[in-house]
Amino acid sequence: MILTFVGTAGSGKTTLTRAFGKYLEENDYRVSYVNLDTGVKKLPYRPDLDVRVEVTAWEIMEEGYGPNGAIVESYDRLLPRVSEYVSSIMELDGENNYVLLDTPGQMETFLFHDFGVRLMEGLPEPLTVYLFSPDILRKPADFCFARFFGLMIELRLGTTTVPAMSKVDTVENLEEYRRYLDDVEYLTARLRLEPSTQGLLAYRMCSTLPELAPPTRVLYISTQTGEGFDDLETLAYEHRCTCGDLT
Amino acid sequence: MILTFVGTAGSGKTTLTRAFGKYLEENDYRVSYVNLDTGVKKLPYRPDLDVRVEVTAWEIMEEGYGPNGAIVESYDRLLPRVSEYVSSIMELDGENNYVLLDTPGQMETFLFHDFGVRLMEGLPEPLTVYLFSPDILRKPADFCFARFFGLMIELRLGTTTVPAMSKVDTVENLEEYRRYLDDVEYLTARLRLEPSTQGLLAYRMCSTLPELAPPTRVLYISTQTGEGFDDLETLAYEHRCTCGDLT
Repeated sequence: MILTFVGTAGSGKTTLTRAFGKYLEENDYRVSYVNLDTGVKKLPYRPDLDVRVEVTAWEIMEEGYGPNGAIVESYDRLLPRVSEYVSSIMELDGENNYVLLDTPGQMETFLFHDFGVRLMEGLPEPLTVYLFSPDILRKPADFCFARFFGLMIELRLGTTTVPAMSKVDTVENLEEYRRYLDDVEYLTARLRLEPSTQGLLAYRMCSTLPELAPPTRVLYISTQTGEGFDDLETLAYEHRCTCGDLT
Repeated sequence: MILTFVGTAGSGKTTLTRAFGKYLEENDYRVSYVNLDTGVKKLPYRPDLDVRVEVTAWEIMEEGYGPNGAIVESYDRLLPRVSEYVSSIMELDGENNYVLLDTPGQMETFLFHDFGVRLMEGLPEPLTVYLFSPDILRKPADFCFARFFGLMIELRLGTTTVPAMSKVDTVENLEEYRRYLDDVEYLTARLRLEPSTQGLLAYRMCSTLPELAPPTRVLYISTQTGEGFDDLETLAYEHRCTCGDLT
């Protein structure tokens, strides 16, 4: 079972890879860890496969690149080896119950670069977890944005994608967040009251969500308290059994 | 008139800022340039306002951060000054015909960070150009992804957003690209033939495009040949006159 954690820098991918991996190991699963981030300095887990063995963003910066250029260039250099990475991950998948893929710090490096897209195309039925932090949710339209971003990842990578709010231990009014994220009809009704052009677009987009995708569960995760780990495990299990239908 | 160039690292934002600015200046417009990228090393234009005066990703990396962490941290440090930047940009807008905003190398730094979102919320009717490279378009579903990404930016930033394919001088079969991007019905019909789950999602999403947004024009731009600069100028002019209706 291959689980891919995708999300912006700071959404908690690496911390979750470590914490959820530990949780699985404590439940007697064999777990392997894959680091796909050429720009990470220190990892809190020991990767079984690590792209930094091949190339790091640092060594490219030493050639004179800026940080953004270096990150893109590092994946340009990894691209010719993408099928080797696919094979190695499939091998790890054969030997373990779970393979956890920790993706590049900046999400777009994975979504907009052929390395990420081809890697995911090559893997058999991975489940993608789209991790977003509650910080990005300030107004109703933002909830629509987060829900749609999960669909965008699914559209781009071609893998079943589950939206997961991270750091739930840091929010006081979790019930309000859940209401907006779980209940698309409620969110749509709320967006209808927004007078701005942005609100109107959000309303229209949200209204189409039910026809676009089956009602996807949203996960609520805290690496501090372990909240949501059992839900993620259940979802991963169901994904393996049903191959993608996570309604 | 404020024009914001948004796109992934390598899509050509900085080069376009310079080349389109030069084009405008040659047409006797007063143009000012704003650099919002803390991670860029060298700029091909002379910025009138530059966030690197306040902070650079490098100096933060010297504190021990990795490149991704440093980029996020740099915008955390800029955030308390966001209203000063809004004021400075509005001042430049008052003194010039065009203010060109060159955004962070990694697009998500702008879309997912409060600095970018609040800056755009504060500006009066900016026009956003979503720049994407033809490299990201390999299969029909990718065209749907690019079209939707423009909407996602509009949803997130609340600004009218025009999708623009960059580097059109590098593609041989531009007509094919144009057909997929300009004619949503054609693209939808093509997606209907895709047997995969990804194709089905793309088909569903594309089918909703006409109800979601008015038929937006797509720009085709080359900084090498200047192709599309007149279209961008026309669109910017119409945006100023009609405040957002770019059908």
